[in-house]
Amino acid sequence: MAVKIPSASVGVKINDWYNAIRKFNVTDAEMLKAEIERDIFRMEEDQDLLLYYALMEFRHRIMLDYIRPLEEEKVSSEFSEILKDIEDKQGKLTGLLDYYFNFFRGMYEYNNHDYIKAISFYRRAEKKLLHVEDEIERAEFHFKMAEIFYHMKQSHVSMNYALQAIETYQAHETYKVRRIQCEFVIAGNYDDLESSEKALPHLENALKLAREEGQRILEGHTFYNLGNCYYKMRKADQAAEYFHKAVVIYKEETSDILPKACFSLALAYFKLKQNEQAHDMFNEGFRIAQQSNDPIYISKFHFLQAIYINEDGMDSLSETFQLMESRKMYPDIEDLALEAAEYYNEIGRLSDSVYFYQIVFNARKQIKKGDWSYEV
Amino acid sequence: MAVKIPSASVGVKINDWYNAIRKFNVTDAEMLKAEIERDIFRMEEDQDLLLYYALMEFRHRIMLDYIRPLEEEKVSSEFSEILKDIEDKQGKLTGLLDYYFNFFRGMYEYNNHDYIKAISFYRRAEKKLLHVEDEIERAEFHFKMAEIFYHMKQSHVSMNYALQAIETYQAHETYKVRRIQCEFVIAGNYDDLESSEKALPHLENALKLAREEGQRILEGHTFYNLGNCYYKMRKADQAAEYFHKAVVIYKEETSDILPKACFSLALAYFKLKQNEQAHDMFNEGFRIAQQSNDPIYISKFHFLQAIYINEDGMDSLSETFQLMESRKMYPDIEDLALEAAEYYNEIGRLSDSVYFYQIVFNARKQIKKGDWSYEV
Repeated sequence: MAVKIPSASVGVKINDWYNAIRKFNVTDAEMLKAEIERDIFRMEEDQDLLLYYALMEFRHRIMLDYIRPLEEEKVSSEFSEILKDIEDKQGKLTGLLDYYFNFFRGMYEYNNHDYIKAISFYRRAEKKLLHVEDEIERAEFHFKMAEIFYHMKQSHVSMNYALQAIETYQAHETYKVRRIQCEFVIAGNYDDLESSEKALPHLENALKLAREEGQRILEGHTFYNLGNCYYKMRKADQAAEYFHKAVVIYKEETSDILPKACFSLALAYFKLKQNEQAHDMFNEGFRIAQQSNDPIYISKFHFLQAIYINEDGMDSLSETFQLMESRKMYPDIEDLALEAAEYYNEIGRLSDSVYFYQIVFNARKQIKKGDWSYEV
Repeated sequence: MAVKIPSASVGVKINDWYNAIRKFNVTDAEMLKAEIERDIFRMEEDQDLLLYYALMEFRHRIMLDYIRPLEEEKVSSEFSEILKDIEDKQGKLTGLLDYYFNFFRGMYEYNNHDYIKAISFYRRAEKKLLHVEDEIERAEFHFKMAEIFYHMKQSHVSMNYALQAIETYQAHETYKVRRIQCEFVIAGNYDDLESSEKALPHLENALKLAREEGQRILEGHTFYNLGNCYYKMRKADQAAEYFHKAVVIYKEETSDILPKACFSLALAYFKLKQNEQAHDMFNEGFRIAQQSNDPIYISKFHFLQAIYINEDGMDSLSETFQLMESRKMYPDIEDLALEAAEYYNEIGRLSDSVYFYQIVFNARKQIKKGDWSYEV
């Protein structure tokens, strides 16, 4: 099967089309229109995009209606005045088009991981959100905002949008999957706000919904997230229980995030000093990570090996951290260095402990520093 | 001079007035109106509030106009229908009133440090912002948003609003003080994003503006902020220079934040091992903090004493941290514990170093955990 075109890319092309329309550049507009019509056939399903397309098609016709009589009469008129005239008369349409213009551009930048740009387009879309009459569509927008701010660790802002979105979805029986996703974002924010205990009821709710929908993979994700919460609350035994349930489902569903769950489960077992189970899980996860040639999880399993298996593994440990650093895996470095710092403190190797605490601090700085820039 | 009433409190009272008006409760509305008119005489200056008052006064008269003929004709009509009729006809007025209703409620919650509630009211105000025609007033709103999100360390969101606000202020020669404040928020966000070097040009600009305006105290704040940036960039010598300039101005202006600048300057001198100047500044700052009975700075000077003056001060150090903890001074604990951890690591007292690193981690958790709750 051919790879589907992401709707955000088609959205950005419709933006170009809009620009051509607003400049009364008929040739470009017609060309882009034809190109977009071809793309839509090979595009992932997206109702919003089809609506945007339909609106733009309508706007295209308005342009032609204005242009043709002009050509016939050979009047060289001020296009900017005509544009103003069209936009005044079609205020509602222009508002909606502006909404979609900025919304799709935001999604496109988000997919390219340029979060700063994405936020600025999303915020422009938000100012036109009042033109969107359908409340589910507004909830979709709020969900996208919650998602991007969660990724950027702007937890309180993300929370605000997620709560707005879920309120709408709750009133509509058919949007259970989005409700589950909202619960994940809310739980994730609570986790980031060092309040994992507040995340639990949201994950319990997600679990109920996932079961009602028969969505096994979402059930697995819920178990994984529950495991994470308990681990952060320093309840490794409950964490291990949930990670185990996630592993079972990911195996059934042959999910590609199985190594992640194996790693977390092995780590929890090592913490609990359940060495036999820990070794089994380590071996299984390491093998899968190697088979799927997953460099991130291979280095994370090397970490477990250096700390818990070859006990004097400081050399191979610093090698692993250097590798992770070269790949800018700062969130992983943060978590694993903290594990190492606490482990070495526990066994009385203080200078190693201090060394890893400093790595944690440095990773946190790098995470905050990020890879962004503002145009000021 | 009597203490001025904060405009946010009067704003919340106008909100009550609005509620009474919308219920056609004439007695309460008249009473609140009279009370508010008295308050306004004793209120801090606030143009926005006066505008809100004027709009509400107008809305009050509309209510009376609708009520009086009803009373004369003794018609018992459906008030909710009349309300709808008024609000439809006065759409623009209702929009503006809703804006101010939520804006002042937000400011009120902000002043009470209930940031979560404040954000939710500000966000409702934002949806009505299109009814505000004056661009300086919209910039004021954006500045308030930048301010609250800066306090909540939602740096990227704060940045977005601050850039919007400053763009407007830049076009208006007369808003230099707000421009300086915007530059402070932008610089503060860069600091929080571990990008202090990007804060410098904004502070340089603030310095230029403060001098143009002859605002000595803002010049002092700029020097203090510059000192902080250089300190975070581990350039203690340049930091000391700027802290010194801030101290000079704060003395001239008898500012109550003089102990803060003395503390930072003493710390920078200790770092630079310029012990004589460090002791002088320590003595001066400590004396002022004691004279003004400032418990926060008294404990921070105790910290300097325990680390740099009485070198085996672990006992008095843990006492100081306990005191700070009981006052929930987590941001101070974070900074000072990190100083201590690094200091003890440097002089080879590793177990003390690890102890303080753990205090840093705990403080960061407490800061994130915060003191908030969401109604879900």
